[in-house]
Amino acid sequence: MAKTLGLHILADLYGVDADRIDRVEDIRDLLESAVKVANLTKISSHYYQFQPHGATGVVLLAESHISIHTWPEHGLATVDVYTCGDPTKAYRAMDYIINTLEPKRVDKQIHDRGIIDERRQSEELRSILVNSLT
Amino acid sequence: MAKTLGLHILADLYGVDADRIDRVEDIRDLLESAVKVANLTKISSHYYQFQPHGATGVVLLAESHISIHTWPEHGLATVDVYTCGDPTKAYRAMDYIINTLEPKRVDKQIHDRGIIDERRQSEELRSILVNSLT
Repeated sequence: MAKTLGLHILADLYGVDADRIDRVEDIRDLLESAVKVANLTKISSHYYQFQPHGATGVVLLAESHISIHTWPEHGLATVDVYTCGDPTKAYRAMDYIINTLEPKRVDKQIHDRGIIDERRQSEELRSILVNSLT
Repeated sequence: MAKTLGLHILADLYGVDADRIDRVEDIRDLLESAVKVANLTKISSHYYQFQPHGATGVVLLAESHISIHTWPEHGLATVDVYTCGDPTKAYRAMDYIINTLEPKRVDKQIHDRGIIDERRQSEELRSILVNSLT
């Protein structure tokens, strides 16, 4: 049986108020809150202020990562939420980010990441066991 | 005219030799080399060793980011290369990572990120200028 390890949501947010995505402090507040709201496990987080406009933020998670890049001059933020395990956490984090930034339009793509054939793995494991016993 | 700000390549690499993706030192070498090979501009990079297996790496770029998450026990690495500006740099970085890890199979997705209507922006700018003059 196939099993999916992770869920990756990519969202491009258009028509965002420039004031909400220009300063790295606001981007930090946004991502740190998203991690808490979705009950994700932060390893570390990293932020950068571009000049004259825009910011980047990345949170390394035990469950994978969240990233954001902003272009206030275009009213644009591109957001990735990629989590392993419970997929509802990815949706909850992304919903929080979108609801907070209030874009006029969202272009969203969703991908399964890492599709594992459990049957094949179990056959490989059995073959290793058989070989070790014979 | 529409203009795309960024190119995002998502690749799931299956059948990777576990020894190549288990240790964070190897993941660090891989990503730092990919940045150099593709002539990308690193802001900072961050790595984490999972126990008992696997690693995460993220490079913040002036052009956006590169990330990798590995599951050596499944022979799996999921890689994202997302760059703004010259799209050939994204392909060059991803090709380097794939060629180095030598997976048996790659599941690749490519997305344009941030599609800007330059005509509409220029009309909005003209409207602001007209309003400021009248």
